[in-house]
Amino acid sequence: MKELLGANDELAAKNRDYFKRRHILAVNLMGSPGSGKTTLISAVAKELGGLRTGVIEGDIASSIDAERMEREGIRSSQINTCGECHLDANVIRQGADRIDLKDAVVFIENVGNLICPAEFDLGESVRLLAASVPEGDDKPLKYVPMFSCVDAVALTKCDLTEAVGFEKQKFLKGLRAVSQAPVFEVSLKKGCPARGVKAVAGWLKKKYEALEKV
Amino acid sequence: MKELLGANDELAAKNRDYFKRRHILAVNLMGSPGSGKTTLISAVAKELGGLRTGVIEGDIASSIDAERMEREGIRSSQINTCGECHLDANVIRQGADRIDLKDAVVFIENVGNLICPAEFDLGESVRLLAASVPEGDDKPLKYVPMFSCVDAVALTKCDLTEAVGFEKQKFLKGLRAVSQAPVFEVSLKKGCPARGVKAVAGWLKKKYEALEKV
Repeated sequence: MKELLGANDELAAKNRDYFKRRHILAVNLMGSPGSGKTTLISAVAKELGGLRTGVIEGDIASSIDAERMEREGIRSSQINTCGECHLDANVIRQGADRIDLKDAVVFIENVGNLICPAEFDLGESVRLLAASVPEGDDKPLKYVPMFSCVDAVALTKCDLTEAVGFEKQKFLKGLRAVSQAPVFEVSLKKGCPARGVKAVAGWLKKKYEALEKV
Repeated sequence: MKELLGANDELAAKNRDYFKRRHILAVNLMGSPGSGKTTLISAVAKELGGLRTGVIEGDIASSIDAERMEREGIRSSQINTCGECHLDANVIRQGADRIDLKDAVVFIENVGNLICPAEFDLGESVRLLAASVPEGDDKPLKYVPMFSCVDAVALTKCDLTEAVGFEKQKFLKGLRAVSQAPVFEVSLKKGCPARGVKAVAGWLKKKYEALEKV
């Protein structure tokens, strides 16, 4: 396992260099199955407007998400991990080559898994976590490696807060015990006004603008 | 990885023998983070009434779930995997020794993860999946190894079907493409009448009664 992670770290460093040379903000988006990662990318990409965007979609099987992205006009590349529980630096480079972008924000939608992806550096610029309200307010204390390794948390499906009895203060207390990452409250329920997307997009835009010029 | 799984399979066979000698129905309950595994065990254990029950709680960190079980009067043992993304046969034997039951239904609450636990035989008698409605109706086709390896599916949080626009027919179509497991629709929303618990308990009771007498 240590060897595996060592080899991955080397490739991740190469990816980081690749993204830097191409002036790309690479966003490693992680979260549980069904935490709303694809929906979040779609909405934030639209909000980023003037900026070029692309997405590398990771899934253990199927190309459902990449097809959805293409329909929405976002340049995408699907990676099937064939059962593997996480994306690694090696497959990211293949995905990045396929979408072939420069001066862009590239989302990497990791495999739906709140554990394993935390261990694998992909060479990303920032790590974003989609944590959904119906997963429960006790999750930061149960999945510490993930919650403590991310740069920001999108608390998704906030429209369900009351329906599932989610206690935001309890969630924040747990999160603050392991991380100082900012939290963006997001709701993207169909047919309702979107909430929180501008804030996530604004945070990413700042990160993009802070990239070294090439 | 193959070696690891081979060693695990040997220990799993020993566990299976242990459970058999003790006349125990061991239920490996898997599912995503926040899919409602703990709540389901608690409700089903109560419904099993006359039968002796226990639970082996798996988590990567914390003892939140075992404490909850003990408060509810269910004999439990907490296993912390220290970051590992699944339970394996080795830790299950330790947990089983600690609760030290005979003639019982023993729930094994696996780590919240829809991928890795599918690969590890624990020596269980049956595999049950908690798949929650807010995770989405496309999950069977995205997480094929898990959905195709279980003996039954508890479709949890059914009270949220309308709120999240979950299409049951789409879910079932995806599931039937990879599995013939029966589906129990469950809702355990606080303050509302429970739904589906009797059906899950009835299914388990039949499995228990079908165990070889010791």
